[in-house]
Amino acid sequence: MAPVSLDTINPKVLKCEYAVRGEIVTLAQAVQEELKSKPGSRPFDEILYCNIGNPQSLGQQPITFFREVLALCDHPSILDKSETRGLFSSDAIERARQILDQIPGRATGAYSHSQGIKGLRDAIAAGIEARDGFPADPNDIFLTDGASPAVPYYLDEATGWGLEVSELKKQWADAKSKGITPRALVVINPGNPTGQVLAENNQKEIVDFCKKEGLVLLADEVYQENVYVPEKKFHSFKKVARSMGYGEKDISVVSFQSVSKGYYGECGKRGGYMEVTGFGPEIREQIYKLASVNLCSNISGQILASLVMSPPKDGDESYESYSAEKDGILSSLKRRAKTLEDAFNKLEGVTCNKAEGAMYLFPCIRLPEKAIKAAEAAKTTPDNFYCRGLLNATGIVFVPGSGFGQVLGTWHFRCTILPQEDKIPAVVSRLTEFHKSFMEEFRE
Amino acid sequence: MAPVSLDTINPKVLKCEYAVRGEIVTLAQAVQEELKSKPGSRPFDEILYCNIGNPQSLGQQPITFFREVLALCDHPSILDKSETRGLFSSDAIERARQILDQIPGRATGAYSHSQGIKGLRDAIAAGIEARDGFPADPNDIFLTDGASPAVPYYLDEATGWGLEVSELKKQWADAKSKGITPRALVVINPGNPTGQVLAENNQKEIVDFCKKEGLVLLADEVYQENVYVPEKKFHSFKKVARSMGYGEKDISVVSFQSVSKGYYGECGKRGGYMEVTGFGPEIREQIYKLASVNLCSNISGQILASLVMSPPKDGDESYESYSAEKDGILSSLKRRAKTLEDAFNKLEGVTCNKAEGAMYLFPCIRLPEKAIKAAEAAKTTPDNFYCRGLLNATGIVFVPGSGFGQVLGTWHFRCTILPQEDKIPAVVSRLTEFHKSFMEEFRE
Repeated sequence: MAPVSLDTINPKVLKCEYAVRGEIVTLAQAVQEELKSKPGSRPFDEILYCNIGNPQSLGQQPITFFREVLALCDHPSILDKSETRGLFSSDAIERARQILDQIPGRATGAYSHSQGIKGLRDAIAAGIEARDGFPADPNDIFLTDGASPAVPYYLDEATGWGLEVSELKKQWADAKSKGITPRALVVINPGNPTGQVLAENNQKEIVDFCKKEGLVLLADEVYQENVYVPEKKFHSFKKVARSMGYGEKDISVVSFQSVSKGYYGECGKRGGYMEVTGFGPEIREQIYKLASVNLCSNISGQILASLVMSPPKDGDESYESYSAEKDGILSSLKRRAKTLEDAFNKLEGVTCNKAEGAMYLFPCIRLPEKAIKAAEAAKTTPDNFYCRGLLNATGIVFVPGSGFGQVLGTWHFRCTILPQEDKIPAVVSRLTEFHKSFMEEFRE
Repeated sequence: MAPVSLDTINPKVLKCEYAVRGEIVTLAQAVQEELKSKPGSRPFDEILYCNIGNPQSLGQQPITFFREVLALCDHPSILDKSETRGLFSSDAIERARQILDQIPGRATGAYSHSQGIKGLRDAIAAGIEARDGFPADPNDIFLTDGASPAVPYYLDEATGWGLEVSELKKQWADAKSKGITPRALVVINPGNPTGQVLAENNQKEIVDFCKKEGLVLLADEVYQENVYVPEKKFHSFKKVARSMGYGEKDISVVSFQSVSKGYYGECGKRGGYMEVTGFGPEIREQIYKLASVNLCSNISGQILASLVMSPPKDGDESYESYSAEKDGILSSLKRRAKTLEDAFNKLEGVTCNKAEGAMYLFPCIRLPEKAIKAAEAAKTTPDNFYCRGLLNATGIVFVPGSGFGQVLGTWHFRCTILPQEDKIPAVVSRLTEFHKSFMEEFRE
């Protein structure tokens, strides 16, 4: 007798889906294996992964200063050795010392306070203040293993809404009419999968809507460093709320940040934080209790989260090289975003919004009726059908829009801007060629 | 209008409790603050934390070789520099190179395969094989952030059972009669909170019981290195099952290991793995899907998990210093366990089982009726009442047994053996003194 079968497993497990690592990615891995075991079996020789926001897997290099500090905190006994000064920048050595002094017993191998090491939360709060121009309280900071584990599962989430307030109101009324009381609005800004950067006025309307309807505003702000157009700037939702005169008692805002995105791209380090504001002490206590059940987030990730919020400053030994690395990454991402956006807009039946920020483009594709029927016959969705064909013909991996909740009857795919710059021409030419032949094949 | 209040929060959040960081620990933190702001206000000058298995917070030092490798993997660009040979052991440099070679693109900052980096899983499987003498498959290994996140929440867990098979059968029948079908048995060996090491024969009975009743055996084996008595040895449940001739098709066993315990004690690194055996491909696919939703565990923790399962070997440059560090920690833990066990057994009304393994003692205390009434009047449980009194009078922090599900009408507390050896005499003398006056105060 098998203890667990598909009949006895928790049905929620079966229902769970994760678009970014779904069918297309499994297929891509199979094709990659095939390329290895049978070179030449396909009209391409490598997989071009445009499916996941994982910059360093595609060749982006980590920021040197951050890695220096992490290494020194991992092995503090070299801090006082003379050879160390030849290997590490002086401000990295100094920063590692400061961080170690903030850790009780300098024990980087101990569970920390459940919210994260206090001194690191101080640095993060100071970084938020410098960014926003409004106070931030270290006791509001909860350090987390990246941003994914931070979205509290105990709140009813309402996601997938457009950001026009008229649309929000419609969705709200619709939920209410079904007997559902939404408790929170999740906004990702800059946006995933859309790459949009919200205008400040739009953010103000959203804040007012949440305040009026008593919704917690869950602000996924992990792409705060990823803005590529001069006419847009990142504004945290907390800053927007404070600038409107709303304080702790007026609105509940949770801001999420991660070390995985930005120019740092340290996905594997699993570091991040949430800044929790506008909850009473009773609820704060419950959030703390849940954090303590999870023990604490990993200490290297905690250290890195403090570093991204307090990078080297003008005058520090590392400042110049740090700035050059940062600017190099961000300006390259900007060029890649523009190149891909232009390429998409040149494709028949495809429209792609401006790549304002984040790491994604989310082009809309109008598929011929014949392709939609073919997808149906293949028992899949039209966007998945397209992405499957693209992968098989070119090795390019997109994520079908179905995984992100697109408007009924429209089809999209999400494409990251993360392949290194020397790979972008191949993405563009192979995509363009495939698209032409796909449209020819299914033309009415 | 507050979006979230105690009336609208998910009731499961309110119900959730975590003994190890519960009321007593909150009280301890308050007392610690008080000692800082008003020195001399208490009859003791420091808090003696015996509540949590967090060795490095109490002064245990990390294993040098492990930290060398972690530092080099964090900052690989120093690997080829001449100063590095003066700072790091040659086998640590070699090991870091090997590990980096196993990571696609040497990208320690990228999300890895959802189960963890393949080369690290290879090392772990080899370590399990060397430990058990039976094959282990790298594809069965799922790397995790410590062992806490690994217990799958999608299985009905049946915990808190005694380990006599007669007791297991009774609990099983009891559950069945209530319409509950247990799906899994969780066994912690060596035990937490009890410090027990199971005899191999007892393990065989448990394996047979699980096989017969179709239960998944969830084996928490994070204390596998923590055995302090010569007459007991650690045997993994998978090894026991295989030695009985049971293979993949006969029984489902999940073994959990963590970098937080053992002689390494690297709680803050959040590393660990589960070895998942005896499930069909359909269920394996579901487990993989859940792992992929969580992206991946942190890479430093993954590396450390591979290191604890493949430490330096005889002949390696670090072997001697590594062995000295390991033996120093384990023999000290053994002495501390024995000293505390003896001290407990000398207290009136207290009996304490032999400290065979893990990091805990779980003495049983027979409290006078008058103390139980006083606890009732103070609206708390008798064990909590005792622990509160102990903390206030001595600064010693124990966890009341109520948090671990003790047999009705019995009272316990859990005490770790982790304070450094020079603190143990203070623990013993303060505890003994408090206990005497407590028993006098509440004597009938």
